[in-house]
Amino acid sequence: MDRFDDIRAAALELFTDRGFRATTMADIGAAVGMRGPSLYKHVESKQDLLARIMTTTMEALLAGYRTAVASSDDPVERLRRATEAHVRYHARHRLEAFVGNREIRSLVDPHRARVLALRAEYEHAFRCLVADGVAAGVFHVDSVRLASYAVLDLGMGVSAWYREDGELAEDAVVWQYSTFALRLVGHVG
Amino acid sequence: MDRFDDIRAAALELFTDRGFRATTMADIGAAVGMRGPSLYKHVESKQDLLARIMTTTMEALLAGYRTAVASSDDPVERLRRATEAHVRYHARHRLEAFVGNREIRSLVDPHRARVLALRAEYEHAFRCLVADGVAAGVFHVDSVRLASYAVLDLGMGVSAWYREDGELAEDAVVWQYSTFALRLVGHVG
Repeated sequence: MDRFDDIRAAALELFTDRGFRATTMADIGAAVGMRGPSLYKHVESKQDLLARIMTTTMEALLAGYRTAVASSDDPVERLRRATEAHVRYHARHRLEAFVGNREIRSLVDPHRARVLALRAEYEHAFRCLVADGVAAGVFHVDSVRLASYAVLDLGMGVSAWYREDGELAEDAVVWQYSTFALRLVGHVG
Repeated sequence: MDRFDDIRAAALELFTDRGFRATTMADIGAAVGMRGPSLYKHVESKQDLLARIMTTTMEALLAGYRTAVASSDDPVERLRRATEAHVRYHARHRLEAFVGNREIRSLVDPHRARVLALRAEYEHAFRCLVADGVAAGVFHVDSVRLASYAVLDLGMGVSAWYREDGELAEDAVVWQYSTFALRLVGHVG
């Protein structure tokens, strides 16, 4: 792990614990044992750090989505795998999900516009997956948009309650939640 | 609306906007045009305000749940109505949901223990609704616990994306989400 990864990890913990606004660059520096000048060699500002955390989170979700859907042409399998990737990411990156949800207000443009565009792209991708299944006659929903929101909500929820040391294994959560997603869109399996 | 309600509303906005830690009692006082002594006639501290916001939120959710399930003995109708109440609350009280999710770390005992106990009670109530349906042979799930978490996740999601001026009416969201919940637990309607 290079120094930037250390700084990013420390910032993520601090933003989670006390919020972006109440965290200072000095706090982040102290957490990784670096002082001003060397810290600023790696990051421009606290805003830059938040922007990089939120942008890479959305890029990782989009990359996971693309890998998931590239593996099949079947609308059922595509939604199943995309949901698996979505839920697994949220189980593994809970702080990113938490900070992403909580600090979108703290992000300034152009970063904010960039993150909102990536989110819109991700939501649109799931909406298309549901629409494809409806068009193929394998999903049955009143509103494609609402159904895709509900599938995405499942991931956000997991990031709020999942714990590695809890009684539910990651795979069990991932597989059952993807089954929930298929049920939710009216697929009779 | 009495003065406490004004103070609570201002605190909720500020906690949402800048976070609990970065909000001061002076900020809250300024937002309602009150100075220290008169403000402290209504609230003990910032911690007291957060505790009251989070406790009343959970009490309102539990009261909504009880009203919803009191109206029927049928497990399907009970889960439908409880989910409707859950989703409607989250569509209408988005700041409470946001602050509740984000600031549980900022709450100190005994408030924190009290809120966690209320949350556990609420989760348990939904788990029982799902278990009742499984016992009656009308729901089919691998894990009652996971299915009840997924139903609850739907509400949290709604609080994150729902807007009154958006293209989806509250009733449409509430009704379709409760249908999603019934599908998710394997009810064939």
